[in-house]
Amino acid sequence: MDIHKGESIDIMNTPNEITDTYVPLPTGFRAAGIHVGVKPPPTRDMALIVSDTDAAMAGTFTRNKVTAAPVKLCRERLLTGMGRAIVMNSGIANACTGQAGLAAARRMAAVTARALDVPEERVYVCSTGSIGKPMPIEIIEQGIPALVAAAAQDRGFEAALAMMTTDTRPKYVSTSLMVDGKGVTLTGLAKGAGMIEPNMATMLCYLMTDACVDADALQTCLRDGVNQSFNRVSVDGDQSTNDTVLFMANGLAKNTMLNPNHPDWAGFCAAVNAVTLELALKIAKDGEGATRFVTVLVKGAANDQEADIAARAVANSMLVKTSWAGSRVNWGRVMDALGYSGVRMDETQVDIFYGDVQAVRDGAASGVCAADIEAVALRDEFLLTIDLHQDAGEARVYTCNFTEEYVRINV
Amino acid sequence: MDIHKGESIDIMNTPNEITDTYVPLPTGFRAAGIHVGVKPPPTRDMALIVSDTDAAMAGTFTRNKVTAAPVKLCRERLLTGMGRAIVMNSGIANACTGQAGLAAARRMAAVTARALDVPEERVYVCSTGSIGKPMPIEIIEQGIPALVAAAAQDRGFEAALAMMTTDTRPKYVSTSLMVDGKGVTLTGLAKGAGMIEPNMATMLCYLMTDACVDADALQTCLRDGVNQSFNRVSVDGDQSTNDTVLFMANGLAKNTMLNPNHPDWAGFCAAVNAVTLELALKIAKDGEGATRFVTVLVKGAANDQEADIAARAVANSMLVKTSWAGSRVNWGRVMDALGYSGVRMDETQVDIFYGDVQAVRDGAASGVCAADIEAVALRDEFLLTIDLHQDAGEARVYTCNFTEEYVRINV
Repeated sequence: MDIHKGESIDIMNTPNEITDTYVPLPTGFRAAGIHVGVKPPPTRDMALIVSDTDAAMAGTFTRNKVTAAPVKLCRERLLTGMGRAIVMNSGIANACTGQAGLAAARRMAAVTARALDVPEERVYVCSTGSIGKPMPIEIIEQGIPALVAAAAQDRGFEAALAMMTTDTRPKYVSTSLMVDGKGVTLTGLAKGAGMIEPNMATMLCYLMTDACVDADALQTCLRDGVNQSFNRVSVDGDQSTNDTVLFMANGLAKNTMLNPNHPDWAGFCAAVNAVTLELALKIAKDGEGATRFVTVLVKGAANDQEADIAARAVANSMLVKTSWAGSRVNWGRVMDALGYSGVRMDETQVDIFYGDVQAVRDGAASGVCAADIEAVALRDEFLLTIDLHQDAGEARVYTCNFTEEYVRINV
Repeated sequence: MDIHKGESIDIMNTPNEITDTYVPLPTGFRAAGIHVGVKPPPTRDMALIVSDTDAAMAGTFTRNKVTAAPVKLCRERLLTGMGRAIVMNSGIANACTGQAGLAAARRMAAVTARALDVPEERVYVCSTGSIGKPMPIEIIEQGIPALVAAAAQDRGFEAALAMMTTDTRPKYVSTSLMVDGKGVTLTGLAKGAGMIEPNMATMLCYLMTDACVDADALQTCLRDGVNQSFNRVSVDGDQSTNDTVLFMANGLAKNTMLNPNHPDWAGFCAAVNAVTLELALKIAKDGEGATRFVTVLVKGAANDQEADIAARAVANSMLVKTSWAGSRVNWGRVMDALGYSGVRMDETQVDIFYGDVQAVRDGAASGVCAADIEAVALRDEFLLTIDLHQDAGEARVYTCNFTEEYVRINV
């Protein structure tokens, strides 16, 4: 599988530099991202994704009990399993906005549908930004005709730009694979940098493919992909009201319909998993104020669920994440977080590795010299492996360090 | 009840200024706090509390599954319900130090017992500081004779100073009350500023009284006091490996033994609750880098437990705490945290008040002008009330804001 990584530059060192701005979209998809006025000019603040034909549609959403108006609307429309377009704005979340917010989301879809000349119920809506502020719906309405007019096959990059809030760079991945001997394309755009916890976080992601996929199968494939990617990323432990992943498959590649019985199904799902994981890692690496990316791997837990709980306790500990901003290795805080995670463990059996270097053996300092541990832990990216020696449970969480810059961004 | 607040100065504005350094100790108690060399000179790094006679002893400890060596030792010794002295050091936590750490804790008690000429099993040990570092037990052993020699009735303040780690000020409270018509004194010393979450956090607290109290009753009284105070404070959501509260009652006030059937029992427990709450609030107000103290009150939850979960979700949200560092009110983040707390709620029924000013009505902006909300939310201390309108569940958590200074302290 050939993954096109548009921005495969050295991500942590050149956060604002984009060297490649072409995002290949699958056949029959167009996109746009323009400034309409939700944010101060000239920042792009609205994006559109549209398929030339009706597409099978799948989606997953935040598990927060407080949900933004567009999430409510998308959930309702997803019952049809069909979609034609996604229209979104950044800057205002349209969450905690009551009936007026829901009316604004419907209006945003209706105006887009009219401009595109497609049925209103085929248009999905997303918003991201500040919670509780009223939607500037007149500004959005006035901007939609220009947004629709801008939509083109080569404007995926602009759409990714318009999705950004505190992101320092747009996030997109595209890959191609063979189905029935026909080439199909799979492209994903995403945003997210803060309010990021497993269970979706303030992240938006739009996946597009020209493959022909059964709608129910598309939903299953998407859910599996999300569970192994976006649901494994944690920046600050806060789960958003707006998280949305939508997946459109318009079938213009003319393959026979993909479903779990199709010989190319596994390959298709593997491509979806690779794309969602790549996008999820881009989110973790772009964590607000983050300068270091850490994969926390817990193994030897009593079961996979406990491994997951332990890994998240470590990845979400403010003290652990803050220690990663510094130049000293503080594995004591990792031990502390494991201890309060509540999972079954015996502290005298815990081993902790930074990369391949064992820092903790049987719950105490291994005796390895600090410089050897630091040589790994001070890298821009490293793997922290924790072995609880209870049983075979294993889980992985992707996270980042926590710096003063996070506070400056969110104050 | 007359609470002597030694440092009842304007706490948030003059964090380093101590205007009153006298800590009344109950009859028969002596204390000391000196520099022995665990920390760089001249910082005081060891404290001692000693009773002239055997005292009834109660204790509560961290619920972390990873526990420091001194916690293991104290739990063991507490089985006797008796104690004579507490010896502690700051700077090194003696956690994740294996068998060598346990031997060091025992040695620290043994050397203190010999210097005091009391049985070894009557001496309790505490440590606070960095996890995983070996105990400098030779330095501690060499320092203990001077520590014991320094112990005096008027040196409670020095003991409180020696307990400090990232604390910006020592924490102590003393009160007196009548039992059987006899005056008894109750004094508490505490430390704690970070790694502070309900369930004890890195906090140490020593309570002393000259009242005569049944040991089992003392334990019950202490547990109730801790549940309503230290267990309701959250700074950063991290629970420590070393949290310890110890309570000594030496009976030198010569009252008839206090137990739940004694007519003055309720008054005694009320005094304990007042002292523990006062100390807990001092910890929250001294949160690492904190400049604002917030009481989160959730009411109208389905039950008290869900109210507690919701209040802690708000109090521990990095985004909520960070927003309190700034000058804008961001109630959307409070809604978000409530939503992911998992408690039963209907977002359209949520009301949120800053002091008496209602910011959120039925889950959306109340329409009150922002300046009125800010007039409350920008105070050094304020009450955030959340009404979920489900049932009668209620809980309160004491917390603080989260600033860049927290990162600087913990990096």
